[in-house]
Amino acid sequence: MSQKRTAFFISDRTGITAENLGHSLLSQFDSIAFRTVTLPFIDAPGKAQAAVAQINAAHQADGQRPIVFSTLLLPAERALIEQSGALILDLFEMFIEPLETEFGIPSSHAVGRSHAAGQNYSARMDAVNYTLNHDDGGISRELHRADIVLVGVSRCGKTPASLYLALQFGIYAANYPLVAEDFSGNALPATLHGLEKKLYGLTIRPERLHQIRSERAPDSHYAALENCRYEIKQAEKLMRQFNIPHLDVTGISVEEIATTLLHQTGLRR
Amino acid sequence: MSQKRTAFFISDRTGITAENLGHSLLSQFDSIAFRTVTLPFIDAPGKAQAAVAQINAAHQADGQRPIVFSTLLLPAERALIEQSGALILDLFEMFIEPLETEFGIPSSHAVGRSHAAGQNYSARMDAVNYTLNHDDGGISRELHRADIVLVGVSRCGKTPASLYLALQFGIYAANYPLVAEDFSGNALPATLHGLEKKLYGLTIRPERLHQIRSERAPDSHYAALENCRYEIKQAEKLMRQFNIPHLDVTGISVEEIATTLLHQTGLRR
Repeated sequence: MSQKRTAFFISDRTGITAENLGHSLLSQFDSIAFRTVTLPFIDAPGKAQAAVAQINAAHQADGQRPIVFSTLLLPAERALIEQSGALILDLFEMFIEPLETEFGIPSSHAVGRSHAAGQNYSARMDAVNYTLNHDDGGISRELHRADIVLVGVSRCGKTPASLYLALQFGIYAANYPLVAEDFSGNALPATLHGLEKKLYGLTIRPERLHQIRSERAPDSHYAALENCRYEIKQAEKLMRQFNIPHLDVTGISVEEIATTLLHQTGLRR
Repeated sequence: MSQKRTAFFISDRTGITAENLGHSLLSQFDSIAFRTVTLPFIDAPGKAQAAVAQINAAHQADGQRPIVFSTLLLPAERALIEQSGALILDLFEMFIEPLETEFGIPSSHAVGRSHAAGQNYSARMDAVNYTLNHDDGGISRELHRADIVLVGVSRCGKTPASLYLALQFGIYAANYPLVAEDFSGNALPATLHGLEKKLYGLTIRPERLHQIRSERAPDSHYAALENCRYEIKQAEKLMRQFNIPHLDVTGISVEEIATTLLHQTGLRR
């Protein structure tokens, strides 16, 4: 079962949609090692011809025809790509026609709408700025404006999760660390009082936290497995005590963390 | 042409793939105002039944059947959703079969692979930390480790673009502001010397910059249209003088900015 396959993600825009769906589909065939190539901005016949040359070269090198995931809308460029010997999975063609039938109107076949800067763009950028200012306990006087406040021990993933919520969904996501003083006092940080309903806890398995912290501060007390165990145990105790919903983020991606939080808190995306 | 339609994005995981493709497809029908609902984590029959109830309620409210974009893999849950009266566009069903035929092996039909934390996850998180430390000229002594250094005037979009490059692609993206001293001296900031090949300029139309800055500091010299015109003219002059490739980001999304930079610089994603 040693197939060698190249998959191309081809788009007249960023290629992000083709990449996302293509990766999801390829991950269902885990015995094959795919090489993936993204070819964005294929918006002129010359670029499509160059893409075909790349596809054909991969075909020859692999000895198997490549797979093309395409979101191309431009007819001339599509026609060129179709002349390659690849298996072409055209994400738009498959779905545009049933939608046209359903709605009883033709689609606009307009390029570049999918990621156009919408009216919520400023809101997303405002959220990024807010989140940067409220990372790791920053500028606490504006914490009340947060949509959600992530809490957890150092290095459990609060920052990337907050940024993803802001960038992707325009959520004002602050984060605040739980530290030794909170554990000894058996209380939430004073800054968080009154914000209980916005709190969401992230937790992680001690072995993984040990690994993450060791990359930065090897052989430190901070990174020691025993200390990681202690901090996580205490943090989880606080979360239970104050009824803070929480999620074990070990082994799950930042996309999944963000989506889970939105889902569980009911925040609009 | 006043159709009222609800579109559902349904998944046994985050729903991000269904959302991305679904939004792209719906944007091709711009005369219809869609209401969109994402139902992630539909991984139990009870949840699928609740989803069907929501679909049917939307059907009744709209007087038109809803559209369902689905990446469900679980058979029992899929069967339940199919019993709703919606138009179901099953993103996996459409493509998994041709891929199985092509590869000559069955797909694993395993849920949750698409966004699983891969081996590059730590790398992405490292990139986020690096980018946060090197936002807006921070910690310049490690600038040489950057994969790319975005330059441009204040508020032209350097920070969100850097963060997106880091979060999505694991790129070490620093950013450095161009300020009045650089313009009067007609030179790049001294910190950037030796990094010329990593520099990438962002620019923006003065009217848009004026708008963005006015939201933060109304009636300031900083936000004045005349000052925005001056700063952008000077910044672009520096970019041309030092052969820094640059991009006008007015009206394009952070996804498009990031993808364009990767494409033009040849950085691996």
